[in-house]
Amino acid sequence: MLAAYAVRADADEPLAALAVGEMDPPNVPEGWVSVQVRAAALNLHDVWSLRGVGLPADRLPMILGCDAAGVADDGREVIVHAVINSPDFVGSDTTYDPERSLLSERYPGTFATQVRVPASNLIDKPPELSFAEAACLPTAWLTAYRMLFRQSGARPGDTVLIQGAGGGVATALIVLARQAGMRVWVTSRDETRGARAVSLGAHRAFPAGARLPERVDAVMESVGAATWSHSINVLRPGGTLVICGATSGDNPPKAELTKIYFKPLRVIGSTMGTRDELISLTHMLVATGVRPHIDRVLPLADAAAGFAAMIASDHFGKIVLEP
Amino acid sequence: MLAAYAVRADADEPLAALAVGEMDPPNVPEGWVSVQVRAAALNLHDVWSLRGVGLPADRLPMILGCDAAGVADDGREVIVHAVINSPDFVGSDTTYDPERSLLSERYPGTFATQVRVPASNLIDKPPELSFAEAACLPTAWLTAYRMLFRQSGARPGDTVLIQGAGGGVATALIVLARQAGMRVWVTSRDETRGARAVSLGAHRAFPAGARLPERVDAVMESVGAATWSHSINVLRPGGTLVICGATSGDNPPKAELTKIYFKPLRVIGSTMGTRDELISLTHMLVATGVRPHIDRVLPLADAAAGFAAMIASDHFGKIVLEP
Amino acid sequence: MLAAYAVRADADEPLAALAVGEMDPPNVPEGWVSVQVRAAALNLHDVWSLRGVGLPADRLPMILGCDAAGVADDGREVIVHAVINSPDFVGSDTTYDPERSLLSERYPGTFATQVRVPASNLIDKPPELSFAEAACLPTAWLTAYRMLFRQSGARPGDTVLIQGAGGGVATALIVLARQAGMRVWVTSRDETRGARAVSLGAHRAFPAGARLPERVDAVMESVGAATWSHSINVLRPGGTLVICGATSGDNPPKAELTKIYFKPLRVIGSTMGTRDELISLTHMLVATGVRPHIDRVLPLADAAAGFAAMIASDHFGKIVLEP
Amino acid sequence: MLAAYAVRADADEPLAALAVGEMDPPNVPEGWVSVQVRAAALNLHDVWSLRGVGLPADRLPMILGCDAAGVADDGREVIVHAVINSPDFVGSDTTYDPERSLLSERYPGTFATQVRVPASNLIDKPPELSFAEAACLPTAWLTAYRMLFRQSGARPGDTVLIQGAGGGVATALIVLARQAGMRVWVTSRDETRGARAVSLGAHRAFPAGARLPERVDAVMESVGAATWSHSINVLRPGGTLVICGATSGDNPPKAELTKIYFKPLRVIGSTMGTRDELISLTHMLVATGVRPHIDRVLPLADAAAGFAAMIASDHFGKIVLEP
Repeated sequence: MLAAYAVRADADEPLAALAVGEMDPPNVPEGWVSVQVRAAALNLHDVWSLRGVGLPADRLPMILGCDAAGVADDGREVIVHAVINSPDFVGSDTTYDPERSLLSERYPGTFATQVRVPASNLIDKPPELSFAEAACLPTAWLTAYRMLFRQSGARPGDTVLIQGAGGGVATALIVLARQAGMRVWVTSRDETRGARAVSLGAHRAFPAGARLPERVDAVMESVGAATWSHSINVLRPGGTLVICGATSGDNPPKAELTKIYFKPLRVIGSTMGTRDELISLTHMLVATGVRPHIDRVLPLADAAAGFAAMIASDHFGKIVLEP
Repeated sequence: MLAAYAVRADADEPLAALAVGEMDPPNVPEGWVSVQVRAAALNLHDVWSLRGVGLPADRLPMILGCDAAGVADDGREVIVHAVINSPDFVGSDTTYDPERSLLSERYPGTFATQVRVPASNLIDKPPELSFAEAACLPTAWLTAYRMLFRQSGARPGDTVLIQGAGGGVATALIVLARQAGMRVWVTSRDETRGARAVSLGAHRAFPAGARLPERVDAVMESVGAATWSHSINVLRPGGTLVICGATSGDNPPKAELTKIYFKPLRVIGSTMGTRDELISLTHMLVATGVRPHIDRVLPLADAAAGFAAMIASDHFGKIVLEP
Repeated sequence: MLAAYAVRADADEPLAALAVGEMDPPNVPEGWVSVQVRAAALNLHDVWSLRGVGLPADRLPMILGCDAAGVADDGREVIVHAVINSPDFVGSDTTYDPERSLLSERYPGTFATQVRVPASNLIDKPPELSFAEAACLPTAWLTAYRMLFRQSGARPGDTVLIQGAGGGVATALIVLARQAGMRVWVTSRDETRGARAVSLGAHRAFPAGARLPERVDAVMESVGAATWSHSINVLRPGGTLVICGATSGDNPPKAELTKIYFKPLRVIGSTMGTRDELISLTHMLVATGVRPHIDRVLPLADAAAGFAAMIASDHFGKIVLEP
Repeated sequence: MLAAYAVRADADEPLAALAVGEMDPPNVPEGWVSVQVRAAALNLHDVWSLRGVGLPADRLPMILGCDAAGVADDGREVIVHAVINSPDFVGSDTTYDPERSLLSERYPGTFATQVRVPASNLIDKPPELSFAEAACLPTAWLTAYRMLFRQSGARPGDTVLIQGAGGGVATALIVLARQAGMRVWVTSRDETRGARAVSLGAHRAFPAGARLPERVDAVMESVGAATWSHSINVLRPGGTLVICGATSGDNPPKAELTKIYFKPLRVIGSTMGTRDELISLTHMLVATGVRPHIDRVLPLADAAAGFAAMIASDHFGKIVLEP
């Protein structure tokens, strides 16, 4: 089958670590199922894999790709939940499984004609969503859904600040928060990105670190060190900071413990989401008409062009591959 | 000052119990403030008061009206929170005060040139809302906001069933739930009202008691006896029934206790809302552009015409009085 | 293997429907495991099964028993979680599975030398608990743990009223609530049972329907129709009624909808508990030294004597069978 | 009236900044009430005030003391809630008021014959508690109650780690958590304190930074920088760190953001508690028989001896002053 995969790690030239070619389809263990991929979406996670981050050499070659929608063996149109749990995990929140992995970390990813996953990782693709649209959801959009609607405590009418208007999670946060009736503010180091955030639905965009007109109810944080003190300072007493990443580093100059307990604040870590939350996200898109913005759709054979665009930040919206 | 008030109770001819005329303005106790009413909205509660329900004879004459927006003595544009707490109440959720009352129950209501309330019952009217729009919020819309966003546990993408598409709370529920990203279903005994609900934003309307295509996550119940078993039956396991009234009676043929514990379900009583929730509601309207639908605006002197329309159900949206 | 099982349904003489004798051990499906039962505890559920309630004729003969502790094939000492989920169920709260059953309803129960269950239904038996003590936990005590610590919202210092001091769940509620720092009140139609409840840890016992000295924060309800209005009336505004059964019928004369929404109140259905909650319960017993009170331990061959005692209500505490 | 008060700030010799002598009783503003103090308890906060931390020179002389129990003008026996809110504050959680202060920060404290507070700051002293016992509750014990029972999410049977076994909050945490059915672990740099913690109810004491036998469900943190990474590392995925202070500094070498979002974890700031929580705490003590351990009771005239003992850490339990 055709696949796009990492053959080695190259921290400086990630594109040089990518291969696109024929591979044998992986065998399908007991309890797993095979899905014909109809669309798969790129995430920065895939570029990090090419750089060797999170993908040790002894797992190579590894088919990349976390996000996919396709058709199961029984003809059912499905979206693939990208979080693979340990078979021994029995808790109620699957994001708490310390042995969890994303597709393309331990098990072959979605940039291929077929992908195989545990049967419980499939959810129905609503007919209202195209395969390309559906393929955009399982990573960035699911992360955003859980941050806003399970972790933040924010209700319609509350003000949510999204730090760093550029990335895939931030984009999904803007669209989902606006749709859910929140007041949406973003920060960005780049005026163009701020304007783009407003075009997506943000009520206002501010420069990074700006003094805000008033305190906010919740902050969505994925930048980390560079924005941490700002996030802490702009929250109202009793407000919530939800953090899903730390792209600028995870050790800010000040940890701000005093403000956390004295104001007081809540800091909630969040990573990906559960199968139930992915289902709710698809229902929300159907109920509202909201759709992920797709920058371009490429054949899987041209995966390198998609990676090149993502590495150059030469895109606005998701890049989708079709096998 | 000009006021519309109940002079007696008339269960059969409520309009005959209404007077519109001059009254002395009530004095303003320590800690209370006076508000120049700019707009006040009618609720069915006002008609019930004329019928003598909830308004004993020894409190007559009583100025009617729960809902108002206006201007405080210091020039601040305000919305009046209609729930008056006992001065001794010190808990954190003011709807739990057993001594609470609505304006027009113990203290003179809002259908007058002036109304006086405890200072903490005023919230800022956002400039984006007109006085007439703002006056529609403190009763039906606040009740709906709390039911959906505090009590129901429903998240964007969840399906919410609203029983009885006609009344003021149901209308607000439809608009708010749709705006917040939920799938909104309604039931109605009347096809016209069902169609109207769809025009307000409901995804689907069903006849009362209809078998639904699938189980729902939450039911908003204000009908009571006539719909109770249907509400219990259509919920998914773990679902939530929020109840704010029982217009068809409060003793259904079956209480359905077995289904409540075996399915299992949650039944959450809800009444009005807190000051904080009223603020959040105004923020939500500003953030989303949603506005209450106003059927007509009348001068306070023509209050009887407004009551007549409400008694005849000859309206779609709120009836607003302007002093 | 030796087993105690229902051979028919006998509504009037349940003991006549019981057989104790040799049966072939059931085969063990893929993903299930076999456990050597060391102790199994009786519940009223087992008597109801003999009467034919919840156990249709086409499933007979059926080995009875929900509760067990024993030794798995690999030598691990285990407690058996009695709730068997559908293999297709994928939600996060297993008590919401509409296809769930208890052991002895669809799958052979625990009154036998061996019982087989899905592997994820086993939890570790702490060495601090004997097999007999451990066998008392999975039904009544698990139900009580979930009602109090997940559903009631009651915190240490709150007052909890337990309706009907007699049964297995009520006994567990008394002991657990007292241990957790709550003020524990019970009602009983029988003075002796009330006194017994106080000996178990209740602070006070009242006659059924008694006027209480003050409103309570939570009511634990398993009686149903006979106590429903009392439960509703004694709650403080904002209080919570948790219901797990309705032994006196599920259709009270008044459903009390008005009080539910006007006071307002929460009514939470609860049934059994999750595997995680069963683990927490065992940890609580180890941390506190609390143990279930065991009335008597009988050999499995004498199961009929145990059933006879339970039918005659001639016991105080759990009746345990040892194969 | 007799009072113990700070006359200046002395960072090195706090005892030299203390005076005990006659002062005019403060006048009682509208809405406030006067309480005859029967017992008042020392906290480290009082020593910090003498050192000038949190008590600027322009507020001197200032009567010290946060904690008190006494008799109101109407003869009611009361406990004084130490958190004074801004009169303008109207939210539902009074610990979120940014203008809040503790008694002795802006308003004269409790080490005097009389103290005056807003009327809503008084709660009933249960007759089961002595004045001395009741006086120990409003600061350290209230803080501990809220951390455990509102913020931690821990349920009976869960494991709670308390960092730093020495102080007043840690002591209260040990006693309350043990009483509520949790497994209680503590760390301490000092073996004697660890042993003392076990004598108070901790199940196990570990050296600071020790590798624990298993992951814990919640950590109670008041040490800050010195224990932060340990607290983060010992939590199970989905676990909760509650922080109420940072005595060793608030800027740990590593902020551990990656572990917070990847594990993931929750970090909850907590400060003091509400009036309702103080009431619940008193009810818990009555229901369980638990009482604060009192090291010594001194006449108010000997306040200096009490301060000296606290500065020398020459006490185990609370130091109580009686006017």
